[in-house]
Amino acid sequence: MDFTTLLLNRRSIRDFLDRDVPLVLVEEIIQDTRLAPSASNRQPCRFIIVRDRKMIERLSGESKRNLLADLTRNPGLPLKQYETTLADEKFNVFYNAPCLVYFIGPSELFSLEVDCTLAAAYFMFSAANRGLGTCWIGLGANIRDPALRGEIGVPEDCRIVAPVILGYPKRVPAAPQRRAPEIVKVV
Amino acid sequence: MDFTTLLLNRRSIRDFLDRDVPLVLVEEIIQDTRLAPSASNRQPCRFIIVRDRKMIERLSGESKRNLLADLTRNPGLPLKQYETTLADEKFNVFYNAPCLVYFIGPSELFSLEVDCTLAAAYFMFSAANRGLGTCWIGLGANIRDPALRGEIGVPEDCRIVAPVILGYPKRVPAAPQRRAPEIVKVV
Repeated sequence: MDFTTLLLNRRSIRDFLDRDVPLVLVEEIIQDTRLAPSASNRQPCRFIIVRDRKMIERLSGESKRNLLADLTRNPGLPLKQYETTLADEKFNVFYNAPCLVYFIGPSELFSLEVDCTLAAAYFMFSAANRGLGTCWIGLGANIRDPALRGEIGVPEDCRIVAPVILGYPKRVPAAPQRRAPEIVKVV
Repeated sequence: MDFTTLLLNRRSIRDFLDRDVPLVLVEEIIQDTRLAPSASNRQPCRFIIVRDRKMIERLSGESKRNLLADLTRNPGLPLKQYETTLADEKFNVFYNAPCLVYFIGPSELFSLEVDCTLAAAYFMFSAANRGLGTCWIGLGANIRDPALRGEIGVPEDCRIVAPVILGYPKRVPAAPQRRAPEIVKVV
């Protein structure tokens, strides 16, 4: 796909067809992320692919529980706007997507957040280029239960940076109007 | 440009032709970044465009000085590998690029690093799509002198997340071999 078209087609997708994404396709998209730049070319980003829908639901439940507990401890969090949604038992933070990819890496690496985010941007473009839809699910990263972390294979020294869902979109909504960019100063 | 071609053409560029980038072109590329996703669609990223080469040199000097001071205080930093380079007076961290764009935003926003990094990924793709080269300069973010911050217009409540240089590449090097992606687990 032409990049200019892709720019408009890469939309956050939260409504998917009931159709699995072949594992080989997920792996191809992950392969493209290796071309993303990383600090000192360390390429620290690693991947966990979750295609078991029951597991995706369990991860949703775990993340919601932890976020609600955070809100109980600290009601001033910006997360407050999502409290009602998070408390809804039927709400799956991963929007019933057929696939979830966690971008993880060594917790102590100073550039981890930037490195994984750049890889995730590549992932979202590469998926859109193949007709697939993605959405970065900020609410889906809070997996703290050691047993559950073990089940999905998060190494002890790693943290989850980016949870990105993947699937075939029911439809691709038009790009919404965005604000004009705020250029603070030209020197 | 076709996205698959663009993926291979988007390379970190550190060697530029002695040719200015028209301001209108920089603004067009920044316009494309507005299509990047951001947490809760806040679009917090703001931009500072620096095209004055003397100013770019001053910013390089300021960032180097601060990083060397950090290293004196804490010799254990990963930055240590760059100490000799940083101490070289002739070294410009921005590789004498004709243009530098700072991606900035409100310091207190929890998602700022991710939001600005996604915008920077869009910027780097959009620039490559127009035949321009970019490089994220991690060493160029440490602008602490209040007077200098004022000169380039960084608001007091903001921090610099991504310094990205922009220019016409002397040549686009071939994509280097990257490691195979490490897929920790498929569930």
